[in-house]
Amino acid sequence: MGGDFGPSVTVPACIKALQQHPDLFLVLVGSQTQIEPLLKGMSASTRERLSIVHTEVAIDEESPPGSVLRKYKDSSMYLAVSLVKDGLVAACVSAGGTGALLLTGRHLLKTISGIGKPAIIASIPVLDSEQRCYLLDVGADLTCDASQLYQYAVMGSVLDSVTHVRENPRIALLNVGHEEHKGTDQIRQAAQILENTEGLNYVGFIESNEVFIGKADVIVCDGFSGNVLIKSSAGLVRVIESLFHDSVQRNLFYRILGLLAAPLLRPLRERIDPSQFNGASVVGLQGIIVKSHGNANTTAFGHAIEEALNELSNNLPELIRQKIIAMKTINVSGAAVSHDIL
Amino acid sequence: MGGDFGPSVTVPACIKALQQHPDLFLVLVGSQTQIEPLLKGMSASTRERLSIVHTEVAIDEESPPGSVLRKYKDSSMYLAVSLVKDGLVAACVSAGGTGALLLTGRHLLKTISGIGKPAIIASIPVLDSEQRCYLLDVGADLTCDASQLYQYAVMGSVLDSVTHVRENPRIALLNVGHEEHKGTDQIRQAAQILENTEGLNYVGFIESNEVFIGKADVIVCDGFSGNVLIKSSAGLVRVIESLFHDSVQRNLFYRILGLLAAPLLRPLRERIDPSQFNGASVVGLQGIIVKSHGNANTTAFGHAIEEALNELSNNLPELIRQKIIAMKTINVSGAAVSHDIL
Repeated sequence: MGGDFGPSVTVPACIKALQQHPDLFLVLVGSQTQIEPLLKGMSASTRERLSIVHTEVAIDEESPPGSVLRKYKDSSMYLAVSLVKDGLVAACVSAGGTGALLLTGRHLLKTISGIGKPAIIASIPVLDSEQRCYLLDVGADLTCDASQLYQYAVMGSVLDSVTHVRENPRIALLNVGHEEHKGTDQIRQAAQILENTEGLNYVGFIESNEVFIGKADVIVCDGFSGNVLIKSSAGLVRVIESLFHDSVQRNLFYRILGLLAAPLLRPLRERIDPSQFNGASVVGLQGIIVKSHGNANTTAFGHAIEEALNELSNNLPELIRQKIIAMKTINVSGAAVSHDIL
Repeated sequence: MGGDFGPSVTVPACIKALQQHPDLFLVLVGSQTQIEPLLKGMSASTRERLSIVHTEVAIDEESPPGSVLRKYKDSSMYLAVSLVKDGLVAACVSAGGTGALLLTGRHLLKTISGIGKPAIIASIPVLDSEQRCYLLDVGADLTCDASQLYQYAVMGSVLDSVTHVRENPRIALLNVGHEEHKGTDQIRQAAQILENTEGLNYVGFIESNEVFIGKADVIVCDGFSGNVLIKSSAGLVRVIESLFHDSVQRNLFYRILGLLAAPLLRPLRERIDPSQFNGASVVGLQGIIVKSHGNANTTAFGHAIEEALNELSNNLPELIRQKIIAMKTINVSGAAVSHDIL
């Protein structure tokens, strides 16, 4: 029910996912009367793998996140996350509000042992590669201490290594410069911890102008900075497209040129298309939750489902749990790092 | 002497500025032996308006900023800011290190009464307008309290109103959402102060994807976020140019198309060209300092000189001083705002 378009986007994306994955079962949580009409024309064999948990209650986007746990226990989002908690489904995908989803997720699923708070991780395009890199946090927690940044590094590293099949993902901390005196206390402390942790491939600070050129596979920052980074980039891409569109409209010669140049711009668009940015995961919980943009179209919501499948097939929460344990035992040997900072 | 290219960029930019502004006098502070050869071919009348304060000492970019005040009192940067302090010149433009320039500026010029710390203000392009908007802080202070954000709003508003001749510049706070419960304590507190301040046109929160579409004239944030925003945008523009360039190289047809499409992309490039981003001012000091990017080319360094002229002709520090005083007296009437927060 979530997002700007509700079932009109999410349901068609679900049907497509069922068609693409013959072993996938989906439970749609929401208004049966809104969902049913959108299922017409499905083959019987596909329809068998889709069920509906009916509720008419959807969370009002204007409500403060805190109200979710008090007022919305019969909402589609709360029920969907409950299904994960009760082991009735293996993952949850939602285009609902981020704050509500985080609160519900933490409340029902709890964080993995050793993880203080969940983070939202986004994948962003890299110029010189077909692959992408991971950026976290992009909005779960606006201010982070050093141990959170360290945990983000571990979680991002685990997700990157399974998604992009990289053995030692390069981890960098987002900062305003490369020199070791740069950055906030939290960032410099996190750098110290990461430098003294074996089993993580920490490569140092990265500046924001370097994130798109593949200088790192996992980029770690607080939720405010990460949010600024992905949203300003998506906004800039839209502005550039709009400026290009305006140029093309100026006269007939430019219009023809625009048509001819379209294939030139296609690879560029594919690489930086915001709908491909979609499917930010909530990581750090004892269960899989993927957050779709509210304004996702069917393709973009489909990406969010794919992301859930990716994490599911790799059992991401368990991998994170194991990695955090492995890290802890090694980390204390770092002479410059006090243990209680973790 | 500062920046990646030193006098080879700064001196030609200075010569051009002298030619364009017949009433401009420039004092170049740096190595006479490096500067002199670059002045050949200047007309005698232009050469008369240029003088050199010789020093062979330039600040090592690797030095921590704190060392500047101890070790570099005879450096080109320190001497240049001293000239402002002593009233021998009216403004200083430098492509040297940001940290060093801020420290030197604060140490020698002091902040304007009512301003706690200086900020760095950058101008960024806006899609639907020939004008730009101002973003501050972009790196002077990585974490800011509410009163700093308030002061940034005042300073940005003053600079925008004189540069872009706008009577009531729209001021927005950068945040991760529009709802009033969003953001850090500092941001929500700053919003409260700004809402209760007469004489400032505060329009609310702005998200990062909206900064390029002209939703506000002055965008206020902490130095870390601002730095992330401008650097990631500049980085993304460079990536897009590079992807386009690669597309064009794929075969002869695309190469011809690329040549034909060049005029299509020109307005776009002009609008988002990073060299046009240049000339971030250090605002809040009792004197004018403009910071050029270290990697600025001659055109970009020229923009930084223009920015200094703009601030000088408007006597920006004095305008800020007056505005801060005017604000203070009105602001305390805001019932929801405690006075000591300012």
